[in-house]
Amino acid sequence: MKTPDPPTAEPCPVARALDVVGDRWSLLILRDAFDGVRRFGEFQRSLGIARNILADRLRKLVEQQVLEVLPASDGSAYEEYGLTDKGAALFRVIVGLRQWGEDHLFAQGEAHSVLVEKKSGAPVGRMELRGRNGRALQAADTVVKK
Amino acid sequence: MKTPDPPTAEPCPVARALDVVGDRWSLLILRDAFDGVRRFGEFQRSLGIARNILADRLRKLVEQQVLEVLPASDGSAYEEYGLTDKGAALFRVIVGLRQWGEDHLFAQGEAHSVLVEKKSGAPVGRMELRGRNGRALQAADTVVKK
Repeated sequence: MKTPDPPTAEPCPVARALDVVGDRWSLLILRDAFDGVRRFGEFQRSLGIARNILADRLRKLVEQQVLEVLPASDGSAYEEYGLTDKGAALFRVIVGLRQWGEDHLFAQGEAHSVLVEKKSGAPVGRMELRGRNGRALQAADTVVKK
Repeated sequence: MKTPDPPTAEPCPVARALDVVGDRWSLLILRDAFDGVRRFGEFQRSLGIARNILADRLRKLVEQQVLEVLPASDGSAYEEYGLTDKGAALFRVIVGLRQWGEDHLFAQGEAHSVLVEKKSGAPVGRMELRGRNGRALQAADTVVKK
């Protein structure tokens, strides 16, 4: 498959990523896709988003090969949207947002959804950035080399 | 310090996080803050963003206690914006975007900035989500329990 044109000439990988998925709706669409949502109407109901905005964001995500259009899994005429491998690799970004939200945006004891391992039902661990020696790194331990 | 009101009543931590940092400018401001940018004018030059939009995003990030306003580190009259602990915890989200961008949005051999450990200069490792037994988890290994 042809690689899509880079979204911009930005030399910073963060900026380039944000040109593809740097808006609330696109990231919520991806969250839903990870939760198994596949059809236009399902995304619309889940997100309460206007049809034209949803259509625009889905088109952009397909163009960037983050989502792909697939025939309906039940043989019906509906099209479905599935994560490509490139889209599935955004899992860490969505989990990063989730873990930050859990840590900082809920009152003590306030209920929220939880990400668990399918097999065991146990909550997943903390996502960590590690150095070559396995030590967890904080922002202050790192620097961007341009 | 008083905890700010939750941005929304969203029970999903991803959605709630996106209500705080779910736009391109806010995330680019945070990227710059992690890179050591602290002053209004520096953010403006780095981002090429309109003053009113930058002022609005900074105000919202301060309101949400992601950034805090600090006296100038050089004793001058300028105010500076620093990451709070809550803001610094977004490091994993920014690194997640960076690593996805590096993997998927650059042509082979195309130059980009690199995140390295300060001490050794070695590139940081891959960020991984792990299960309780230490195994790396992909999206398909997990499910959201509502």
